[in-house]
Amino acid sequence: MQTFAQVRVVGAGLIGTSIALGLKQAGYTVSVDDEDPEAEGIAQSLIGQSGEGSSPELIVIATPISSISALVRSYATQYPRAIVMDIGGLKSEVVAEIDKFSEVSSRFCSTHPMAGREISGGLAARGDLFEGRIWIYTPSSISSALAVERALEIIDVLGGKAVLLTAKEHDQAIAGISHLPQIVSSLLSATLIDISDRDIGLAGQGLKDVSRLAASNSELWSELLHANSRAVLEYLEILSKHLDDLSTSLQNDDLRKTKEILELGRENHARIPGKHGGKKRDYWYLPIIIADKPGQLAKIFDACALVSANVEDLTIEHTPGQESGLVTLALSKADSVKVYEQLINDGWRVQQPRESIG
Amino acid sequence: MQTFAQVRVVGAGLIGTSIALGLKQAGYTVSVDDEDPEAEGIAQSLIGQSGEGSSPELIVIATPISSISALVRSYATQYPRAIVMDIGGLKSEVVAEIDKFSEVSSRFCSTHPMAGREISGGLAARGDLFEGRIWIYTPSSISSALAVERALEIIDVLGGKAVLLTAKEHDQAIAGISHLPQIVSSLLSATLIDISDRDIGLAGQGLKDVSRLAASNSELWSELLHANSRAVLEYLEILSKHLDDLSTSLQNDDLRKTKEILELGRENHARIPGKHGGKKRDYWYLPIIIADKPGQLAKIFDACALVSANVEDLTIEHTPGQESGLVTLALSKADSVKVYEQLINDGWRVQQPRESIG
Repeated sequence: MQTFAQVRVVGAGLIGTSIALGLKQAGYTVSVDDEDPEAEGIAQSLIGQSGEGSSPELIVIATPISSISALVRSYATQYPRAIVMDIGGLKSEVVAEIDKFSEVSSRFCSTHPMAGREISGGLAARGDLFEGRIWIYTPSSISSALAVERALEIIDVLGGKAVLLTAKEHDQAIAGISHLPQIVSSLLSATLIDISDRDIGLAGQGLKDVSRLAASNSELWSELLHANSRAVLEYLEILSKHLDDLSTSLQNDDLRKTKEILELGRENHARIPGKHGGKKRDYWYLPIIIADKPGQLAKIFDACALVSANVEDLTIEHTPGQESGLVTLALSKADSVKVYEQLINDGWRVQQPRESIG
Repeated sequence: MQTFAQVRVVGAGLIGTSIALGLKQAGYTVSVDDEDPEAEGIAQSLIGQSGEGSSPELIVIATPISSISALVRSYATQYPRAIVMDIGGLKSEVVAEIDKFSEVSSRFCSTHPMAGREISGGLAARGDLFEGRIWIYTPSSISSALAVERALEIIDVLGGKAVLLTAKEHDQAIAGISHLPQIVSSLLSATLIDISDRDIGLAGQGLKDVSRLAASNSELWSELLHANSRAVLEYLEILSKHLDDLSTSLQNDDLRKTKEILELGRENHARIPGKHGGKKRDYWYLPIIIADKPGQLAKIFDACALVSANVEDLTIEHTPGQESGLVTLALSKADSVKVYEQLINDGWRVQQPRESIG
């Protein structure tokens, strides 16, 4: 699987250092550059390797988006036989910029791993950060087959799931799934600026979750939002309309309309991949009451395997010390019926399969 | 600490059933009423007890807010020696209503536990739902000392942290820390209604967190928002202004202004309490790569049962178009090591146990 050996990572932040760690563990020779000597030193001590590999076959640019295209060009010029990839959060501008320089762009493949952590910086790096995560790649028409192959090799070696998009498709998707949630979270937090310390001290998990992204770096995020402003503004217009509609329905005490807006959000929420998987709508749910002791889940899954049912997802609701717990399986409709009958036969306390969990 | 024995819970939803479960575990005799026989049956099978306790000393009204004051009066009349408390999400109207009936209101103490889940219904109940959570109580001037004492006993027994507010203070606080986050989460989800399945399938943890509340019951929430519309509308006006400002700064490519708005959110985020998330669970997490086919989970749980490990929770992440998924088990630290070693022996692709799911 490994078709080359020498990798240079430029940028010793969370993503760059995690890539370096993972590739080192997989047997590549890796060195890390960072303009900050301290960050570079941390990354090198984490990967246990100093700046060897003077002629890199692959260079990974892992820096903020404003610096990417210049660095791609400068490293590609310095190492005229190397392939270059980046991991930036926006693609259209970078790809268009680099496409202007065909001697560089044929050796370039742009990518974006959908992995991150709340903690940033090289110290938070993990070699397995990308295991099982989506990793989008957006080659341009000028990218050579070799450039795409090397990028895909890295994604595969690090356990990522490669998803091919055009740069434009990527930026459009990111506006909805990443930029809009960031804005909503920041605006919520800003709206609460005048709330008293006593009142905010009463907040529970809901406010905490919805406002979590507000803690993000405002400089990096302003850059991202402005670089993707057209797609972002389209969403802000829809958001603004919903907000106006809700304010109006509250002012007019139009309960039906308020419920309609909330219901629109509730229904669409089912499409968001999460604990209940990416296709929640298609699932049927089977709640089973279990004793809170080892072996109960194994027996349930044995029953599922016996009738060849594929469990798509499951939740466990129980409390240490509580005598019973609740397991809810998510299955296809056909499988939910098969498993229900098997579990009833086996003497389980199981509820009828249902289309909705709540 | 326990000064009485017989509790009647009216309403077998998430909160009512969780209260019943917790009190049963603490040694109280608990019965549950619900106008829906199926919901009542589920609650009773979860608490393992049928409708005993014919003369309740405390009645907990755990129904939607529109029905609370009528039920308080009816149960208080039927059981003239009982204390009555409610757990509704708004206080001003209920307290004012019941204060009109002094023979009832002296035996009434209104409360609101700051615990909930986006999943509703008794099946989602857990006896430790209130552990470490704030539980506001808003007695009126007419509430007797005994009424307040019994309410505080319940809060204490269930592990809640009692906070005394006036009904009006409560409703104002709730508008900011609960109603506004709910609205923002619902509007985000509604705004994404036209996003493609492919794009939403790429979403990461950020969108999941910010949109989590959108899954809430839209009927209950419409009621709450309308009953608190004055305070809610004040916040929506501020939110709308911030949203307009951000749209304008993006349109005008005014990077400084965009950063200023995000920075306002970032700074205020620091005031939001981070550790109110209930009782800390000392779980360790074990990520496992699985093939997406029947029998995989059964094998994992067989391995868990073999080493007598109790799986506390589990998440399954699917990647669109891929044949493998990522399963993360939550276990005690000791169990995570046992299961890790067993799975490695069995040839699974499993990562080191870790303290954070990051």
